Amino acid sequence: MTINTLIKDLKDGDEIVGFYLIKEIEVKQTNSTIPKDYLDLVLADSSGNISAKYWDASKSDIEKFFPMCLVKIQGVVQVFREKLQVKVIRIRKTTVQDGVSITDFIRSAPVGADELLPVIQQAINSLKNVDIRAIVTFCFEKVEDKMQSSPAAKSHHHAYYGGLAYHIVRMLEIGEFICRQRPFLNSDLIKAGIILHDIAKPVEMVSEYGMVIDYSNQGKLIGHISMASNWIIEAAIKLGLDLESKVILALQHLILSHHNLGEWGSPVQPQLAEAVALHYIDAMDAKLQMVEDMLQTSSGSEEWTPAIRGLENKAIFRLKI
Amino acid sequence: MTINTLIKDLKDGDEIVGFYLIKEIEVKQTNSTIPKDYLDLVLADSSGNISAKYWDASKSDIEKFFPMCLVKIQGVVQVFREKLQVKVIRIRKTTVQDGVSITDFIRSAPVGADELLPVIQQAINSLKNVDIRAIVTFCFEKVEDKMQSSPAAKSHHHAYYGGLAYHIVRMLEIGEFICRQRPFLNSDLIKAGIILHDIAKPVEMVSEYGMVIDYSNQGKLIGHISMASNWIIEAAIKLGLDLESKVILALQHLILSHHNLGEWGSPVQPQLAEAVALHYIDAMDAKLQMVEDMLQTSSGSEEWTPAIRGLENKAIFRLKI
Amino acid sequence: MTINTLIKDLKDGDEIVGFYLIKEIEVKQTNSTIPKDYLDLVLADSSGNISAKYWDASKSDIEKFFPMCLVKIQGVVQVFREKLQVKVIRIRKTTVQDGVSITDFIRSAPVGADELLPVIQQAINSLKNVDIRAIVTFCFEKVEDKMQSSPAAKSHHHAYYGGLAYHIVRMLEIGEFICRQRPFLNSDLIKAGIILHDIAKPVEMVSEYGMVIDYSNQGKLIGHISMASNWIIEAAIKLGLDLESKVILALQHLILSHHNLGEWGSPVQPQLAEAVALHYIDAMDAKLQMVEDMLQTSSGSEEWTPAIRGLENKAIFRLKI
Amino acid sequence: MTINTLIKDLKDGDEIVGFYLIKEIEVKQTNSTIPKDYLDLVLADSSGNISAKYWDASKSDIEKFFPMCLVKIQGVVQVFREKLQVKVIRIRKTTVQDGVSITDFIRSAPVGADELLPVIQQAINSLKNVDIRAIVTFCFEKVEDKMQSSPAAKSHHHAYYGGLAYHIVRMLEIGEFICRQRPFLNSDLIKAGIILHDIAKPVEMVSEYGMVIDYSNQGKLIGHISMASNWIIEAAIKLGLDLESKVILALQHLILSHHNLGEWGSPVQPQLAEAVALHYIDAMDAKLQMVEDMLQTSSGSEEWTPAIRGLENKAIFRLKI
Amino acid sequence: MTINTLIKDLKDGDEIVGFYLIKEIEVKQTNSTIPKDYLDLVLADSSGNISAKYWDASKSDIEKFFPMCLVKIQGVVQVFREKLQVKVIRIRKTTVQDGVSITDFIRSAPVGADELLPVIQQAINSLKNVDIRAIVTFCFEKVEDKMQSSPAAKSHHHAYYGGLAYHIVRMLEIGEFICRQRPFLNSDLIKAGIILHDIAKPVEMVSEYGMVIDYSNQGKLIGHISMASNWIIEAAIKLGLDLESKVILALQHLILSHHNLGEWGSPVQPQLAEAVALHYIDAMDAKLQMVEDMLQTSSGSEEWTPAIRGLENKAIFRLKI
Amino acid sequence: MTINTLIKDLKDGDEIVGFYLIKEIEVKQTNSTIPKDYLDLVLADSSGNISAKYWDASKSDIEKFFPMCLVKIQGVVQVFREKLQVKVIRIRKTTVQDGVSITDFIRSAPVGADELLPVIQQAINSLKNVDIRAIVTFCFEKVEDKMQSSPAAKSHHHAYYGGLAYHIVRMLEIGEFICRQRPFLNSDLIKAGIILHDIAKPVEMVSEYGMVIDYSNQGKLIGHISMASNWIIEAAIKLGLDLESKVILALQHLILSHHNLGEWGSPVQPQLAEAVALHYIDAMDAKLQMVEDMLQTSSGSEEWTPAIRGLENKAIFRLKI
Repeated sequence: MTINTLIKDLKDGDEIVGFYLIKEIEVKQTNSTIPKDYLDLVLADSSGNISAKYWDASKSDIEKFFPMCLVKIQGVVQVFREKLQVKVIRIRKTTVQDGVSITDFIRSAPVGADELLPVIQQAINSLKNVDIRAIVTFCFEKVEDKMQSSPAAKSHHHAYYGGLAYHIVRMLEIGEFICRQRPFLNSDLIKAGIILHDIAKPVEMVSEYGMVIDYSNQGKLIGHISMASNWIIEAAIKLGLDLESKVILALQHLILSHHNLGEWGSPVQPQLAEAVALHYIDAMDAKLQMVEDMLQTSSGSEEWTPAIRGLENKAIFRLKI
Repeated sequence: MTINTLIKDLKDGDEIVGFYLIKEIEVKQTNSTIPKDYLDLVLADSSGNISAKYWDASKSDIEKFFPMCLVKIQGVVQVFREKLQVKVIRIRKTTVQDGVSITDFIRSAPVGADELLPVIQQAINSLKNVDIRAIVTFCFEKVEDKMQSSPAAKSHHHAYYGGLAYHIVRMLEIGEFICRQRPFLNSDLIKAGIILHDIAKPVEMVSEYGMVIDYSNQGKLIGHISMASNWIIEAAIKLGLDLESKVILALQHLILSHHNLGEWGSPVQPQLAEAVALHYIDAMDAKLQMVEDMLQTSSGSEEWTPAIRGLENKAIFRLKI
Repeated sequence: MTINTLIKDLKDGDEIVGFYLIKEIEVKQTNSTIPKDYLDLVLADSSGNISAKYWDASKSDIEKFFPMCLVKIQGVVQVFREKLQVKVIRIRKTTVQDGVSITDFIRSAPVGADELLPVIQQAINSLKNVDIRAIVTFCFEKVEDKMQSSPAAKSHHHAYYGGLAYHIVRMLEIGEFICRQRPFLNSDLIKAGIILHDIAKPVEMVSEYGMVIDYSNQGKLIGHISMASNWIIEAAIKLGLDLESKVILALQHLILSHHNLGEWGSPVQPQLAEAVALHYIDAMDAKLQMVEDMLQTSSGSEEWTPAIRGLENKAIFRLKI
Repeated sequence: MTINTLIKDLKDGDEIVGFYLIKEIEVKQTNSTIPKDYLDLVLADSSGNISAKYWDASKSDIEKFFPMCLVKIQGVVQVFREKLQVKVIRIRKTTVQDGVSITDFIRSAPVGADELLPVIQQAINSLKNVDIRAIVTFCFEKVEDKMQSSPAAKSHHHAYYGGLAYHIVRMLEIGEFICRQRPFLNSDLIKAGIILHDIAKPVEMVSEYGMVIDYSNQGKLIGHISMASNWIIEAAIKLGLDLESKVILALQHLILSHHNLGEWGSPVQPQLAEAVALHYIDAMDAKLQMVEDMLQTSSGSEEWTPAIRGLENKAIFRLKI
Repeated sequence: MTINTLIKDLKDGDEIVGFYLIKEIEVKQTNSTIPKDYLDLVLADSSGNISAKYWDASKSDIEKFFPMCLVKIQGVVQVFREKLQVKVIRIRKTTVQDGVSITDFIRSAPVGADELLPVIQQAINSLKNVDIRAIVTFCFEKVEDKMQSSPAAKSHHHAYYGGLAYHIVRMLEIGEFICRQRPFLNSDLIKAGIILHDIAKPVEMVSEYGMVIDYSNQGKLIGHISMASNWIIEAAIKLGLDLESKVILALQHLILSHHNLGEWGSPVQPQLAEAVALHYIDAMDAKLQMVEDMLQTSSGSEEWTPAIRGLENKAIFRLKI
Repeated sequence: MTINTLIKDLKDGDEIVGFYLIKEIEVKQTNSTIPKDYLDLVLADSSGNISAKYWDASKSDIEKFFPMCLVKIQGVVQVFREKLQVKVIRIRKTTVQDGVSITDFIRSAPVGADELLPVIQQAINSLKNVDIRAIVTFCFEKVEDKMQSSPAAKSHHHAYYGGLAYHIVRMLEIGEFICRQRPFLNSDLIKAGIILHDIAKPVEMVSEYGMVIDYSNQGKLIGHISMASNWIIEAAIKLGLDLESKVILALQHLILSHHNLGEWGSPVQPQLAEAVALHYIDAMDAKLQMVEDMLQTSSGSEEWTPAIRGLENKAIFRLKI
């Protein structure tokens, strides 16, 4: 009997007891003459997913469990049609006494929010232009509570708990380097552009534990680019700033142009040096993170990863020299 | 001696006296051994353009005249390299006593602003939803003084004095028809969308007498679509409206999506019935006006008009049945 | 026991008796040790579809029923895998005595053919140019009998009984408006273009009760645009008209160019004012009808409709202000 | 004094007497104080072009000469701004007594029409299917008189006297080969497709001596593809053939699809084996002819030819192994 | 009892004994209360495929059979869900005594390798330039053993045993014709280009019996175009040829440019006459082979073949005149 | 009299004496009755260009001067048609005694080759894998002498003396940063990829003093990407390395894929983590250098720079906050 074994380490025949997250749950019927309900589950922990069947589900079981609830399970690992699955013997919802937290079971950024948020806060504090600092602060506070958990995208890149904050922090590192390498760039604009470029994503997308459930109505009808642009105006008015000032012009331009091309969602193309830089800082971080994440979450024993949609649907080769 | 003959009616050998607008002016040198300055002009009136030469320009003449100034001219019409041009004999700037106004010399919408603006105003007044009416009023007042003269585009369509107001009024006519034909459309949104869709163009572009001189910095860096979207936010805050309300959502969506595709400048695509309608009302009016204007301003004796850039660079055939 | 309840109004547990259309029918086998044949059905009426199972199908039942046949059914409504379905208890084909007609069970244009066809006929009669009138009449007569039922497209837009006639009539309304608004347009050409632009669709596509079953060989190899163009030539020869005349040139051009771009199937692009107008009249009617139909046939309790392929695959938001 | 030297062989200082074609002619003014008219000419023969000036042009000279007229010239070859030009001393129009024909001065297909037309005629005669033979004959007779001279395109390929007939004959050679190599192809359809695919080009384009002057109105509004398609219908009706027959279907399909893609002007894409073959026979002949012509008409002493528009704007390298 | 009936000739109820190839094999479980393993097979011969079930599979059967192994089968042909399948009664692997060879069961080029390879060899021998001959020989020897079986593509065209050799031989026929028709082409370059253009495909792709199993790592990371280009360099160095010579330049260019456009995989576009020719020879042979193969392997009783991906996803119509 | 004033500092009326580079030179004729030759020049120094006229050019002057020769000039700065130009009074070629070098007059990278080359050399020395180091050394030595001067592109980016070395060094800086930030990247591959990615450009393009004069034949027919790929093979053979080794595979892949897409010239797309990184390091450096160079070489008094072709033809706004 193994206890709380990570899903990625389960083997055929293991008898297990442990805590898992229900990621998906469906009531199905057996194909016997008198069909009987059973629960078809996907269990998850931070290391991966496994399917499970609970054949003896009672009417009350069916009503008790739901997606994203934590459960304690006793079961046996079996092979079914070439894949491992858990035959559930006993299942119950966790209680406070179990002392487990959902965040232990979900995929997260490599660095925790408690490390990331202070870095972003410090970047904001370091902004020398007071108007820029005030606007960035205003916008950041709108989503500060969600910044802890929000992913940077639905599936494209950084699609996990804390993904957006991690994306911002890594971009700030690149931004700092590039400002040192090319001093003609205005570092306030680079930093502000990085923090603001995806700042409306937590409102554009509805996410739970780092997984995007859906887009909000605003997200679909306005889009995160124009939403962030709105927030700049709102900030400026509430802060009593001149709506025609160069700071407003620059910050809006950085946000509006950061997707680079109209067909990628930007209504204007980069026309400030810092806007050009912002686009490439964003692209470099997103693309390399896709690669790094895929290498880590796919089987290291395969030469090729699965295809990555954001990279022209190409797979990555694990080359060892 | 003919007086104030329209440019399109001038013929070889005409001796003329009349008022004209200097559209372009350049100081050039004759190619004689001792070069001598002369004025190379383009004269305009509401019927068209003609080039002119003033060979006897004095130093003070050279400093006196400038583009868009009105002049009284005495001269002779001649043929030079297969085209008509005016040999200027006498030239002076007009004075108040001459009683001429620049608006008599420029290309204008077929209907005057004094007729157009009340129609727009009345459409605003007819808006049933008070929030929509307040926001449209707020935005319209921002450009009301420029609405008299502003063109709808640099050269694409309605590129003349009062062109934007004319475009709006004609779209309102189509909008009224389509709301009658398809009652499921919300006529407040259709009207508001029509009035607001290009409302920031007078600030996006710098124009004089209906001719676009340049784009403003805001126009280049933000673009008229996002500028109008900004104004909605500004209006909502100043009017104390809820920024998350459906009215704000709808009006911003109408503006942001009216170019239909990302590559045409819209960061989101139409997702309200009225947004779909708005795009096609805009397209239909713009395209047909291009055709109508080209047919009117090109020579009626040619079977084919010059090519129209906004129509896949196709020329129009004057078919008479 | 409810009688002839509309499908969209059925509820779990209803015991029903009524007439329905078999839209799809498949013989399947149960997965018992000795498999047994049963009928897996899709029933339809004018309000929608529902799946049904007839477990006790005899060999003769299996041969008796076929797609598009009308049946009288007694059954019970049940929930199976989260969806409603009918468990059929008794089923028989309808007879003349039942007094039901297939047209009562199919999706139709909002206006009946008996109202639509006279409108088209009147538009034809109103054509002032006798040659145009003769050609339009010739082409219209080729498909007059199919015009009653023919849809305008397979699924894109107006894909229902009488859809093509409805599309033509609505376009005629827009055309009449636009000719009034812009008198330089030749209203004979606009009307003729509207009636002829999709006139070959009933021959391009094989449809039954407004549903496109397939494309004809001619439809695939020639296409409705070139087929309609052919008919003009045929008409001209049979009517003794000059093949080089401007009327023939104009009518062929209107048809050939109405898809606007080569990649959308038009071998030439619009080069008559009326051809430009025709394209936008067609687009506006087709796009708005897609929106209107989708809003009506999808659940009003959902904020978002399903995605609409013809609108860049965007869904429409039901905004209530 | 050299007589009738080919233009490509003229050298600085040559005193010449000979017959040339006036390809372009313009009346210009000298820039002396009292400007004086002179003739600025482009002279041509079958080997190339050279510019010429006639300084002593009288009023009557100016009226006498026109483009495409043949002249006898006495002059001197000089270098002006790094290029050769002829200073004309005497010039007169040719007379019947001179015994020169315009065809001696124009660029022609490598094989004369008197050799090409019988080959096409023989291909027509060899068509086994009587209906196909009758239709091809009908269409061919429409342009038989122009086939002698008509180019295959304005500038793209085979843009010279007899170019279309040469293109057809060379395609017939490829077609014959491919039918031998792949006997499943119907050789009647291949031959007919080759002869008909560009058959309407002589009417689509207005050409003189193998040079396209302009497109005809029909050419612009209908296009050669749909025009040829029209002729099939006309032929079928006049010959009493069934408009729904497979022969008509096949011939129209071959013509309509031979440009392969919508964006290249084909309203339908190839869906007969012979239509696929026809497209590639056409492409192979056109592309290789562009290359061969460019290699022959550009200077053999340059490693690279000028860029060829029809080949992705690439130049060809003269590689000698 | 029929013996070794071709799969395409099997009928419902046939009792069969014969040799077949296992193309696919999967162990599945019955859906009975106590699930039981069975073999779900796809059997193949040179005429097509059929699915088969072996219900009585023992543990040792499950381990004994694998894809691409030859088996002797006794069974009954039945209809299951509207398709034929074989119920296997007895099955065993073939032995040497059975005297059957896998090549009897696979889809092959219409002409055998023993006829094709000598044709290619003779083309190599006929190369007049000794350097070209040496390089082609070097490259050809690298894959000579695989040339017997290698397909020309995964599924696009010539995707069967010996497909690549067949493609080369047919292209050599076209190449010979075109060199005769257009003598300015260098026939050594045409022949060498044809033999080398896809020469690295047997290493780019891993195939078994003419079926591509996968791409090799080199195939994915370098691609057959650059691999062949590499071989030229390797050949030149090993043969002691000048790497800067025109022969090397020409052969590399032919290979690198033969896909014509960057988006089709060619890093440079054709800039030699022979490179232009090579691209069209390749395209013509590939496209017509797709058509011919599809016509032969799809049911002749259907008017339309299935869609062909390499032909814009169009189906081909079987037109009989 | 000013001496050796930088061209960008010249003013109307200046009398100058100084050394300049003749960038362009053309012999023209005055338009007087008896035309007279004069020299129309473009003079350059490291700060910019100015046009100049030498009216008194003798026959020997015309033969003496040529593009890229250094001259000593005495002259007067004048305004002609709104632009400054130099009226040359005396001109002679420089001699050794003048002590001026052409490199003083040309546009150069911000850092000299004597600083750049050691940095590249040190990066090569730091390569830990001996095979990679050997291959990089082999390739680098092929162009070492040209690396001093070679630009990175014709006009796109780094188009000046030493531009390629500067591009490599700056990319090495980014590469070093990104390897520190993302330790999963193999720094040998990143460094080698950076040094090799454009290594064949000095042979692809013929440049003089950092200005690309033309592309070489190899450059046009093979392209720098495949040329560098060739060099890897050459290196491997000469160094006795296994052509199938992972090092060769990786280095070729990095080079072949660095343009990312087929339409940008890469025959394969990035499929190694380091290849993805390399593409974005290259893009970021090239784009930001375009911006920085344009800001520096265009007038600082204009708000907008000229449009930059490599940035979607957008201009950059000089925003001062």
